[in-house]
Amino acid sequence: MTAGAQTRQRLLRSAGELFRSQGYAATGLNQVVAESGSPKGVLYFHFPGGKAQLAAEAVALTGGDLGARMAAAMAGATDIRGAMTALGDLFAADLEASGYLDGCPVASVALDGGDRSQPVLSACAAVYDAWLAGLANYLNRQGVPDGEAAELAALIFTSLQGALLLARVQRDVAVLRAVTRQLGDLANRAALRQARLK
Amino acid sequence: MTAGAQTRQRLLRSAGELFRSQGYAATGLNQVVAESGSPKGVLYFHFPGGKAQLAAEAVALTGGDLGARMAAAMAGATDIRGAMTALGDLFAADLEASGYLDGCPVASVALDGGDRSQPVLSACAAVYDAWLAGLANYLNRQGVPDGEAAELAALIFTSLQGALLLARVQRDVAVLRAVTRQLGDLANRAALRQARLK
Repeated sequence: MTAGAQTRQRLLRSAGELFRSQGYAATGLNQVVAESGSPKGVLYFHFPGGKAQLAAEAVALTGGDLGARMAAAMAGATDIRGAMTALGDLFAADLEASGYLDGCPVASVALDGGDRSQPVLSACAAVYDAWLAGLANYLNRQGVPDGEAAELAALIFTSLQGALLLARVQRDVAVLRAVTRQLGDLANRAALRQARLK
Repeated sequence: MTAGAQTRQRLLRSAGELFRSQGYAATGLNQVVAESGSPKGVLYFHFPGGKAQLAAEAVALTGGDLGARMAAAMAGATDIRGAMTALGDLFAADLEASGYLDGCPVASVALDGGDRSQPVLSACAAVYDAWLAGLANYLNRQGVPDGEAAELAALIFTSLQGALLLARVQRDVAVLRAVTRQLGDLANRAALRQARLK
């Protein structure tokens, strides 16, 4: 990687972390530059579209990373229930390690009032679509048929998102365990039902 | 109501609406005063604790209102499935009427990076606790036993929250319908199971 590409990557990582922990509107570009250890002035060189471009690319990067961690967590589990538990554990670990600051890196940009420009929203939607597809794909491989897998993936995704929010507000990860246990039972039943039909 | 109390109420309503649609960090106190049609200078008279006090009280007010609308929507339904559909309809209507700006008025304060002071977080947690209790109470009255009602209420609450977020990002309320349909089936099964045991 060239020095320029490395600087660009550092700016994106710093932006992604700051947006995640303190929100989009509250994060200033000067802080991103300072955190990344880059010289002033490089930001607009690498991101002529300013904060919106930085946010769109940072969401894609950090959202992609988290999606890969979710996929690895599920792949490492021995069954569907274990996979749901592993997803809850992953999010709980991020929350606890950050003093309940690090929730969903996409939500902290998408829900924030600072920017609703189309490139930012599109980047957020693309990450969520990929997560949904990853969940549906996992369920499908466990025997849940296509249509049902997509529906169940939506329920799992939305419930995890809401649990992340509630856990942050309550400063307690218990709700993550409570919903992933129920989601695990649900997904397991869907897979078993299908196995019986065969 | 005295003129002073009316001004205070107007400030809270304006703050609640602005926080909900554009987020906490992006909302300035001058804008709240201007929107409420109040003279400058009244804000600190009524809210000596500044933005944090305003946010804590606005969340309690707007969150209480929305909780009452949720309870009325469920009470007006003929069965559990209808109640879940009604909740989805309520949130979908708010999203669509606001051009996908108005999601959860509590999340838009809690998730925002501007303020994580204890009074604000406590106000958010109190509203969510009341919503969870309202959901559990409704399920309980429909025959779902206490412990299961509380667990199911957590799943319904978190999934609705996540669906609100995803619908905003996708600018499409379809996910709200998809999850409330599944939640309706789930809750209905829980109530039927209990009825069969009796």
